Amino acid sequence: MKKLFNYVVVIFALCSVSAPTFAEAAVSEEGQYIFNSLAFYIGGVLVAFMAAGFCMLESGLVTNKSVSTIAAKNIGKFALCSIVFFLFGYQMAYGIDEGGYIGSFKMWSDESSVGGDVNYSGNADWFFQTMFVCATVSIVSGAVAERIKIWPFFVFAVIMSGFIYPISMGWQWGKGWLYTAGFSDFAGSTLVHACGGAAALAGVIVLGARAGRFTGSGSKRVMVPFAASSIPLTTLGTFLLWFGWFGFNGMSQLAMGTFDDVTAISKIAVNTHLAGAAGTFAGAAVSRLIGGKTDVIMMLNGALAGLVAITAEPLTPSPLAAIFIGAIGAIIMYFGTKMLEGFGLDDVVGAIPVHMFAGIFGTLIVPATNGDTSFGTQFVGVFSVVLFSFVLSYAVFVALKATIGLRVSKEAERLGTDKAEIGVQAYAIRD
Amino acid sequence: MKKLFNYVVVIFALCSVSAPTFAEAAVSEEGQYIFNSLAFYIGGVLVAFMAAGFCMLESGLVTNKSVSTIAAKNIGKFALCSIVFFLFGYQMAYGIDEGGYIGSFKMWSDESSVGGDVNYSGNADWFFQTMFVCATVSIVSGAVAERIKIWPFFVFAVIMSGFIYPISMGWQWGKGWLYTAGFSDFAGSTLVHACGGAAALAGVIVLGARAGRFTGSGSKRVMVPFAASSIPLTTLGTFLLWFGWFGFNGMSQLAMGTFDDVTAISKIAVNTHLAGAAGTFAGAAVSRLIGGKTDVIMMLNGALAGLVAITAEPLTPSPLAAIFIGAIGAIIMYFGTKMLEGFGLDDVVGAIPVHMFAGIFGTLIVPATNGDTSFGTQFVGVFSVVLFSFVLSYAVFVALKATIGLRVSKEAERLGTDKAEIGVQAYAIRD
Amino acid sequence: MKKLFNYVVVIFALCSVSAPTFAEAAVSEEGQYIFNSLAFYIGGVLVAFMAAGFCMLESGLVTNKSVSTIAAKNIGKFALCSIVFFLFGYQMAYGIDEGGYIGSFKMWSDESSVGGDVNYSGNADWFFQTMFVCATVSIVSGAVAERIKIWPFFVFAVIMSGFIYPISMGWQWGKGWLYTAGFSDFAGSTLVHACGGAAALAGVIVLGARAGRFTGSGSKRVMVPFAASSIPLTTLGTFLLWFGWFGFNGMSQLAMGTFDDVTAISKIAVNTHLAGAAGTFAGAAVSRLIGGKTDVIMMLNGALAGLVAITAEPLTPSPLAAIFIGAIGAIIMYFGTKMLEGFGLDDVVGAIPVHMFAGIFGTLIVPATNGDTSFGTQFVGVFSVVLFSFVLSYAVFVALKATIGLRVSKEAERLGTDKAEIGVQAYAIRD
Repeated sequence: MKKLFNYVVVIFALCSVSAPTFAEAAVSEEGQYIFNSLAFYIGGVLVAFMAAGFCMLESGLVTNKSVSTIAAKNIGKFALCSIVFFLFGYQMAYGIDEGGYIGSFKMWSDESSVGGDVNYSGNADWFFQTMFVCATVSIVSGAVAERIKIWPFFVFAVIMSGFIYPISMGWQWGKGWLYTAGFSDFAGSTLVHACGGAAALAGVIVLGARAGRFTGSGSKRVMVPFAASSIPLTTLGTFLLWFGWFGFNGMSQLAMGTFDDVTAISKIAVNTHLAGAAGTFAGAAVSRLIGGKTDVIMMLNGALAGLVAITAEPLTPSPLAAIFIGAIGAIIMYFGTKMLEGFGLDDVVGAIPVHMFAGIFGTLIVPATNGDTSFGTQFVGVFSVVLFSFVLSYAVFVALKATIGLRVSKEAERLGTDKAEIGVQAYAIRD
Repeated sequence: MKKLFNYVVVIFALCSVSAPTFAEAAVSEEGQYIFNSLAFYIGGVLVAFMAAGFCMLESGLVTNKSVSTIAAKNIGKFALCSIVFFLFGYQMAYGIDEGGYIGSFKMWSDESSVGGDVNYSGNADWFFQTMFVCATVSIVSGAVAERIKIWPFFVFAVIMSGFIYPISMGWQWGKGWLYTAGFSDFAGSTLVHACGGAAALAGVIVLGARAGRFTGSGSKRVMVPFAASSIPLTTLGTFLLWFGWFGFNGMSQLAMGTFDDVTAISKIAVNTHLAGAAGTFAGAAVSRLIGGKTDVIMMLNGALAGLVAITAEPLTPSPLAAIFIGAIGAIIMYFGTKMLEGFGLDDVVGAIPVHMFAGIFGTLIVPATNGDTSFGTQFVGVFSVVLFSFVLSYAVFVALKATIGLRVSKEAERLGTDKAEIGVQAYAIRD
Repeated sequence: MKKLFNYVVVIFALCSVSAPTFAEAAVSEEGQYIFNSLAFYIGGVLVAFMAAGFCMLESGLVTNKSVSTIAAKNIGKFALCSIVFFLFGYQMAYGIDEGGYIGSFKMWSDESSVGGDVNYSGNADWFFQTMFVCATVSIVSGAVAERIKIWPFFVFAVIMSGFIYPISMGWQWGKGWLYTAGFSDFAGSTLVHACGGAAALAGVIVLGARAGRFTGSGSKRVMVPFAASSIPLTTLGTFLLWFGWFGFNGMSQLAMGTFDDVTAISKIAVNTHLAGAAGTFAGAAVSRLIGGKTDVIMMLNGALAGLVAITAEPLTPSPLAAIFIGAIGAIIMYFGTKMLEGFGLDDVVGAIPVHMFAGIFGTLIVPATNGDTSFGTQFVGVFSVVLFSFVLSYAVFVALKATIGLRVSKEAERLGTDKAEIGVQAYAIRD
């Protein structure tokens, strides 16, 4: 035990390697600029893979008759959110006064406030940030699958990527009031994942469940299993998300041009990976012990929940702590999934337990490893963002329902949205 | 409106961030060598993903009975083109005299003309360039699917990667006559995409349509829809192509070791992404407005057309201009697709409208944002390359048809090439 | 011929570009630290893609009733091996005395022996190394598919990643007795691939073939073809493995901060790519010539065999030599596959011929291009590692069989493990 204790101490020490005293020849300013911009470029490409990951995950989990719709929704949202974030969202998030509540378009008339920085290329930063907004809206897409109309979803995606996400994200990363208050969310357990999850919850409530998903009601409610179209695609999607997370968390260090920065990125990669690993295993174990089968979907969502949980603070935990955080995130996801089913809420891919529940947990646990934060401030942060995202998303979904309509017709749902809305069947399975 | 105008001005200003005056300590020569070689390495890996992207895109769009053939064709072509480009193509492209018309094997006997450079590793450059030739030939593969014999296709791939593509590519990137004339094609809207698309057109004409693809003829011709084998795989392929494009366009800057180079790469990543995004949305909008359904295939091909269109000049346009260029590329693709159908040409995946039509447009529009180019020169460049590629490809296809045969037998086409040529069925759908 | 000879000489010269004499301003120590850590980060991410690659390859090759199990096994193994390698394996491999036979937990009580290095981040190194252990265990997963119980497989994965792989890997990369003896295995033809392949062979022998796989016995044994669930997914998996190999081999240079290192990485990328290309083509040619069909599975496994073969020495061969090594690796794989079938061994995905046979060949051929090695030492190395891995794996599989059981019941195998163990069907093909 003594040895084990020493070992654990040593493992913890991995975090605190002190900088070697380099000779005077450090990296030049131009070198730092290149490394920092390269970090954003690599991070942006990796987080872009998450868009493909979400698309595959969702394509695989819906029934055969909605897969083309998922594809159209995901690539369409990737496109729309990028354009809208470029035109509006970036200003909403970063055109904010320090300690403020909402960005402005003052950047429209203030040339000096946009563009590059002496430390990195402004375009590289924008590229990286854009992939985050795409991830946020992806979370919603999976939850509301198979019964939402595609164009109203696109309208929601525009509002989410142009306003809802960037405003609350700016509270922290744009140095708004949450930043001033001391809230900490390294790569977005709350700002991205819980925000997206809360919007998904709003959508699921306003839309209602898919036809035939539940029989009975109240305590007699029983969920009817729907056949997933392709488990290997869902698994591929999870892998892509996992790898994308190395950029999502790692490059949220926002710099790579010094010893400290690249050492932090490396530490973050290890912690992120171990949290995902622990979440996967926890998902396998809990589904086997409670449900009797080693449910692959619980393993995949366990991986994601572990990754979401570590996202709020992937740097300060020791690797062992990262393992615990990931595992607990997955366990919360498991019971959260059952809870939602109990309420008759039809979250097609499990986006709410994965992103919102594990995201809230990850944010609240930050003070356990990061002494500069407090539980109280973390609670305020997560509560504000989740409430803001939920209320606004709910209002938007209700408004869409009342105007252009939100849900496909019963006939279209029976036929499947692939036939009704997209006109292209996903698989030629009767060929 | 005033504000909006200012905003637009500011957004445009994103392009023209001037270099901060760094202290004397710039990046050392060795540092630049490393950054430049790393750029080629990262770019090569990303463009390699495009090979997988083309394979998935095509696998998903053909009918169930030709999917294994597509897989074999794509991985086989990836292999063959790399070897042939190493042995011959590289010399054809870069062993050219300045202002010349065709490369030579003088590099065979002139040691000093091959290999490394003081600024980057020659091997890294070759690695990057090889992935481009694989992309070019991939464009042909999809168009001629389901009725071409696999080994004649491989023969064509050898000629295309060893001679057709490298010769006309050398006119520009090898500093041949088009370069001297002032033609500009940053990453290959013409040299790669229109070149590949023209070869695809030749193949489609020589081969003829798949059995049963069209009924009637002339103005009474009707296209019979064939069931795509897997829309999610096609979507995955499009995502992979999109991400690969960040390397395709970004690293065509050919250097990363200075402030200016990494700033250009970042700008290119943004413009490339926005053009793809705009193409996707344009594909969705135009198919919904004209065809009544939000056709996912038009969205995917719209993304690609937008990416192709921006490829000739991803650096000088403002982001807003990139959005317009991408959208127009997609609209041209949409009508081009309908036009080809009207002519009874059976381009299985839409390679010709995506790569040739949008590539021509992208090349011709360069002077709108790059003052160093002229419409006349751009026209000469695109016309020469397209004509050269079309005529030579046509001749090769006709020669193959007359000798070893080009098209599978009617019986093999009815059975499917997976059974007839590959001996492996793609899906165990009756298991 | 004279010209061709010159050309070949010049091509060979690509390897021996001498360093330009840079001005005194070389890359600073901090700059080198960043480049080296970045190499591990990029390499780790690319090798991580191999985990997804193995998963897709295997998902596609098994029958429809075991695909969810493959997904669960692959993501579960990715998770478990990472955690176990973190806790134990890393010490077994690197906590070894120079020239020693087995690592120890001395690192547990010796703080200075863990963590960072003055040249790179220790965490980045760990991240990269972890992805290697995941690859090793993946090799086993495919061979024993469709009849192994999932939890006993996980137990094996723990022992393999915590002890079997790291111990024999430490003999060389941890500077143990094989390193002292002069054995050379650059990126793991033996330490990863043959080691994993030998474990797979042990598993296949202990488990026996799938029900119905063979009819008759001895010289009358006939293999019954089973329908692969999805050839495009298998192809995608092969592409992902191929691209991952650019990190697997390239970043096994273990540094990127000098002219020599990045030049080596570039050379390795070229050789790796050409070996894979040659293997693909050899697989196509040999299957066409001998079997009559251009077997796509032989092309895919040919690519992998070529990549495995070059892995032992991707730096010293000329590109032409790399082409030969890759092609021969694929031919060995082809006949190895037929040999295993002749013995009635049921290796579902061909992992043994791809990884063990081609890996042994690649290791033994090293002295042909690397003058610092000898055939004798290479033989000792490959023999020791393969024997060690086979014997220990065999013992573990037998022990598992005798205790918690290794193979699913006949009824579960008939139903498929997806229904029996996972409870989730992979495809909704009757929807």
